[in-house]
Amino acid sequence: MGNCSQGCKDCFCRQKNTNIRLTLPVVCFVWQIAMIILFGVFIRYDEESNTHWVETKAHNNITSDIENDFYFRYPSFQDVHVMIFVGFGFLMTFLKRYSFGAVGFNFLIASFGLQWALLMQGWFHSLDPQTGKIFIGIESLINADFCVAGCLIAYGAVLGKVSPVQLLVMTLFGVTLFAVEEYIILNLLHARDAGGSMVIHTFGGYYGLAISWVLYRPNLHQSKRMQGSVYHSDTFAMIGTLFLWMFWPSFNSAITDHGDGQHRAVINTYLGLASTVLTTVAISSLSQKTGKLDMVHIQNSTLAGGVALGTAAEFMISPYGALIVGFFCGIISTMGYIFISPFLEKTLKIQDTCGIHNLHAMPGVIGGIVGAITAAAASESVYGKQGLINTFDFTGDFKDRTVLTQGGYQAAGMCVSIVFGVVGGAIVGSILKLPIWGDPADENCFDDEVYWELPDEEEEHQESIPPILEYNNHMIHKHQDLSESNFSVEHCES
Amino acid sequence: MGNCSQGCKDCFCRQKNTNIRLTLPVVCFVWQIAMIILFGVFIRYDEESNTHWVETKAHNNITSDIENDFYFRYPSFQDVHVMIFVGFGFLMTFLKRYSFGAVGFNFLIASFGLQWALLMQGWFHSLDPQTGKIFIGIESLINADFCVAGCLIAYGAVLGKVSPVQLLVMTLFGVTLFAVEEYIILNLLHARDAGGSMVIHTFGGYYGLAISWVLYRPNLHQSKRMQGSVYHSDTFAMIGTLFLWMFWPSFNSAITDHGDGQHRAVINTYLGLASTVLTTVAISSLSQKTGKLDMVHIQNSTLAGGVALGTAAEFMISPYGALIVGFFCGIISTMGYIFISPFLEKTLKIQDTCGIHNLHAMPGVIGGIVGAITAAAASESVYGKQGLINTFDFTGDFKDRTVLTQGGYQAAGMCVSIVFGVVGGAIVGSILKLPIWGDPADENCFDDEVYWELPDEEEEHQESIPPILEYNNHMIHKHQDLSESNFSVEHCES
Amino acid sequence: MGNCSQGCKDCFCRQKNTNIRLTLPVVCFVWQIAMIILFGVFIRYDEESNTHWVETKAHNNITSDIENDFYFRYPSFQDVHVMIFVGFGFLMTFLKRYSFGAVGFNFLIASFGLQWALLMQGWFHSLDPQTGKIFIGIESLINADFCVAGCLIAYGAVLGKVSPVQLLVMTLFGVTLFAVEEYIILNLLHARDAGGSMVIHTFGGYYGLAISWVLYRPNLHQSKRMQGSVYHSDTFAMIGTLFLWMFWPSFNSAITDHGDGQHRAVINTYLGLASTVLTTVAISSLSQKTGKLDMVHIQNSTLAGGVALGTAAEFMISPYGALIVGFFCGIISTMGYIFISPFLEKTLKIQDTCGIHNLHAMPGVIGGIVGAITAAAASESVYGKQGLINTFDFTGDFKDRTVLTQGGYQAAGMCVSIVFGVVGGAIVGSILKLPIWGDPADENCFDDEVYWELPDEEEEHQESIPPILEYNNHMIHKHQDLSESNFSVEHCES
Repeated sequence: MGNCSQGCKDCFCRQKNTNIRLTLPVVCFVWQIAMIILFGVFIRYDEESNTHWVETKAHNNITSDIENDFYFRYPSFQDVHVMIFVGFGFLMTFLKRYSFGAVGFNFLIASFGLQWALLMQGWFHSLDPQTGKIFIGIESLINADFCVAGCLIAYGAVLGKVSPVQLLVMTLFGVTLFAVEEYIILNLLHARDAGGSMVIHTFGGYYGLAISWVLYRPNLHQSKRMQGSVYHSDTFAMIGTLFLWMFWPSFNSAITDHGDGQHRAVINTYLGLASTVLTTVAISSLSQKTGKLDMVHIQNSTLAGGVALGTAAEFMISPYGALIVGFFCGIISTMGYIFISPFLEKTLKIQDTCGIHNLHAMPGVIGGIVGAITAAAASESVYGKQGLINTFDFTGDFKDRTVLTQGGYQAAGMCVSIVFGVVGGAIVGSILKLPIWGDPADENCFDDEVYWELPDEEEEHQESIPPILEYNNHMIHKHQDLSESNFSVEHCES
Repeated sequence: MGNCSQGCKDCFCRQKNTNIRLTLPVVCFVWQIAMIILFGVFIRYDEESNTHWVETKAHNNITSDIENDFYFRYPSFQDVHVMIFVGFGFLMTFLKRYSFGAVGFNFLIASFGLQWALLMQGWFHSLDPQTGKIFIGIESLINADFCVAGCLIAYGAVLGKVSPVQLLVMTLFGVTLFAVEEYIILNLLHARDAGGSMVIHTFGGYYGLAISWVLYRPNLHQSKRMQGSVYHSDTFAMIGTLFLWMFWPSFNSAITDHGDGQHRAVINTYLGLASTVLTTVAISSLSQKTGKLDMVHIQNSTLAGGVALGTAAEFMISPYGALIVGFFCGIISTMGYIFISPFLEKTLKIQDTCGIHNLHAMPGVIGGIVGAITAAAASESVYGKQGLINTFDFTGDFKDRTVLTQGGYQAAGMCVSIVFGVVGGAIVGSILKLPIWGDPADENCFDDEVYWELPDEEEEHQESIPPILEYNNHMIHKHQDLSESNFSVEHCES
Repeated sequence: MGNCSQGCKDCFCRQKNTNIRLTLPVVCFVWQIAMIILFGVFIRYDEESNTHWVETKAHNNITSDIENDFYFRYPSFQDVHVMIFVGFGFLMTFLKRYSFGAVGFNFLIASFGLQWALLMQGWFHSLDPQTGKIFIGIESLINADFCVAGCLIAYGAVLGKVSPVQLLVMTLFGVTLFAVEEYIILNLLHARDAGGSMVIHTFGGYYGLAISWVLYRPNLHQSKRMQGSVYHSDTFAMIGTLFLWMFWPSFNSAITDHGDGQHRAVINTYLGLASTVLTTVAISSLSQKTGKLDMVHIQNSTLAGGVALGTAAEFMISPYGALIVGFFCGIISTMGYIFISPFLEKTLKIQDTCGIHNLHAMPGVIGGIVGAITAAAASESVYGKQGLINTFDFTGDFKDRTVLTQGGYQAAGMCVSIVFGVVGGAIVGSILKLPIWGDPADENCFDDEVYWELPDEEEEHQESIPPILEYNNHMIHKHQDLSESNFSVEHCES
């Protein structure tokens, strides 16, 4: 730092102000109040969550309350909910000192995002033209959680390098873009994507990567000491991994057709994920001199099979087909961590903290392609006449569509999600580059110290002092004093 | 301590004996045997969990097994079960050295409490007058878990300051009081409280606070070094927070009406909780000089919205109404941690370890009030004629009750729960003050050392010693030797 | 070691090669490819997960999609899935430095095992004679998870002492043996065992113990320093304990009869487990001089009641009967940890890392006996005529069987599971003794270092260094250098 004050003529020593005492509360309050007003204007209970259900039942000759969509979807909804908050949250706790930020900011942006998603998705998908209202039920909640998932994926790319205010902005635009691309893919193109290989994972992945590319930090190595994991943080991350892995069958089946649709999506995802684990372990072991396994691979690549079955899980891909998809995804995703991530960082200047390119973007694209092929290969002999119509929803305007055309539209959907991710991410990244959001300096990245009151760890080591002695805490909490000012200076490169 | 032995004339140097080798096993054995006997006399399977179900089906013209109440309630039950054991248990692990006590004692008292609750609630709510038996099914299990929740809330106030024997006594009386107040509120007053804002949270909150008030420890500062958290203990606590947060919709909907009742309660709770997260973050950030977030707020106040919707979640409070409730609860609860908790401790001499006043008592009261207002404001135009009857159960003796009267009774129920909590807690607190329960000395509070065999932490730091060398453990485990006697002397104030 | 190089004439100084870079990837790839081929040949969707479901519905006069077995079983399936991956995985993280191995290898072998189980169980139970295909649905997935559970139990006995390749071999044979004994017990003997007291726990327990007996390591004390727990690893283990405990009702009810069968199994398991917690705490407290509790007991013995109700949970054992079973299991299991485990190790030379003898083998046998007695004591007056037939499935070839005979066959099933466990385990143990599997040396047991890339823990302690200073990592990572070669030498006994 001494060098800096001397020859600092052509060096732009910008001071980063990470004080978010004004921006964060303002954004939270204003946006939440906006939500309340918009919900007041637009959002109502649908007919199955309304006290008029008793009349709806009588009117539609429904004999039992169990026919309420709630009972078809609620168990899956809760599993998805766990994936969003515990799964994504804890998966990102692997960094040694960013667990609070991982779990806490994940919590914050998901809570905002799901409200905004209910509105955005409502306007595009279910706005009632007569009343001008959006009627929500359990399926809306699942879709809102799905929409949020896209933004949480993007968070993985910029983990530790942005402020919570930036994350909220990223979520606001992310949800907006998501609703539009989803509308184009599912409604206009009439592609099927129940588990969101394209809509959620491909979009979310490229959205995050593009943002990370715009926000490239050439001096990120200055916080390299914080980029690793420690033993317990890796164990915490496995909580996230496992809850994602276990509940992925619910994710891919949550909004598929009642009956066989949900049933089949669960079986396919269950099998695909199991297959992925074995090939991930194999490649991880191969990549090390002595065959040791790498926790990064186990935590992430084991999930790639679930991503890649997001589109095809509801089709008749057949059990061995699911295994094959999982097989290759485990390989590709793990190789991604070994070869592609370093390449992205060095050559394309994309710093991807959690490796979402390997876990979401690539497997998402694979999932889109698998979906297109599986759809194009569908036949009446396998699906049955009515089964084919049900599975691909060949009704109304689309009743004459052939499976081959469907395959083409699936592929088109794939492209839409990539374009929305890349272009949207680049634009949003530029907005996030404005020096008003309180992002940390390069040497303070991946450190909870910046945005969280941290407990005094030093006291922990004094436990063995006999408790009946008077306790004198003379410690000087250096790093706390240091950060109190919340101003930090970036390194100058002269 | 030297001073004490000298001039210790007017000083009452009571020795605290924390040896519970006699009391804890005796209480566990005797009470469990009592449970077995009472279950043998009173508890039987209900008609839906009985092998005679096949006849019941035929008799009631039920066409499918899926109409068994099991399938309406089991997913919610399991979520509630997770909240009780993982949610409450891990939420309290935030203390640096009380994780075993938090999770372990929570486990113990919940396991006892649910058995006793099945009996107490059975006697009051579902004792069959003809046979003198209590018939239990899935809804009974949910109600037992709910009843236990009240006692676990109370545990939060005294966390770290009581012995497991005291906790069991507290649970015995807590469940008993709970069953009585619940009977008065739900049956006599015919108030609605499906998610227990009043019955569970208000009662449990004031019960715990009153006990803590009676057990006030003026010298608790002597164990101040143990009152903080460490980094990983805060991360563990987030597991509790998130499972409570995610499954709260199941909590508030677990015993509401089949169909729209459960559906609506889920939507309202989901929304209310999301709103709470944003305002909690806002206030937490505002409260610190540089806008940093405080884990205590994120862990606790984010849940206040769920508490406050415990009564109104099943009503037509409308989505924006749920958001508004969550909005204010996040603010109030976080401000409670900042301003009210210190006030309670200094002025009212209430030491509230987990801040249950901010998380349960206050939001519970808010929930009761919101419920009363929402009930009083209900109208046939919004609910529909039959919907109004179904929602408020205006049948039998109550078929002529108006919504306004209902609002009044809701408010009356609120008061009953406060009175039962405060008076009951004061009485039970006095019982727990007897010097026979093995509670820890002031300087040993918040320390697992007192009631748990702890692993030797020192060895952890020796991992880097080459494993092929002979291992000699010369360490003197000071604090273990010290505590072996399990007698500790309180500080004397001369 | 110096002594060894000198007088090492009659001493067999075998070098242990823990390099698994060849074997692990080969096994994973070859087996996974085999799975794909076998699935391609044999496995198909059943009629409820097939797009032809719409025709099946019409053909069988099924009026609603909710009648699909998916909706009866999916919530229980997901709970079981959590038990397998998070429950078993985290329960074994109690060791201070084997969390990666506990969770990671559990993940690996369960993922392989469930695929192999679908095939093996399919061939034995549901191979369609006409088409030669196995048709799978949600119940198949649950059964596959159950089958895997048996192998994960066995893993508990050898935790920390085997390589992942050995574990995969153990799983391959374990699943095979499981499918055969299950076929004998459930199909040939027509015994009932929905929660698997015999089929899963007794078999798995003795299978693991027999393997551990064959693999006895006389010099295991050399890695004694790694055998303990640390504070946080014990807290992680409680995550496993609680998810197993909470979801055990789903485990025991997942494949019982629709309706009352599932309902009753849940109630019985819920009650039995609650009772176990109290007696476990009582005995644990009694066993220590000052009444302190031992985490090992709380983590494990509290689950014994669930194991012991695996057979009888679906019977009319009555609520107090379930409490009694739990009562005694808590006592026996905890006493097992105190008295029997040391005896097994010293006298019978069985090293049982997790104490599966106390948690699975013994309670499993108790469960088998309880099941036999409860079956033999069943009467038409209690069950009802049709209820008796439904519960014990007295149809087809078995329509004339009496309850007494049934009791006898239950007991016979018990013996079959023990024999398969012991004999099978002994044989598989001998296979695992071959020096080709990369198992660790005695002084490297219980150490993740051998099979995992571990993060540098030393850096953690340097956090307080001001982040703006240049970071120089001069540390010599001794133990990493040491293990890089992945060759370690066993102690010689001269």
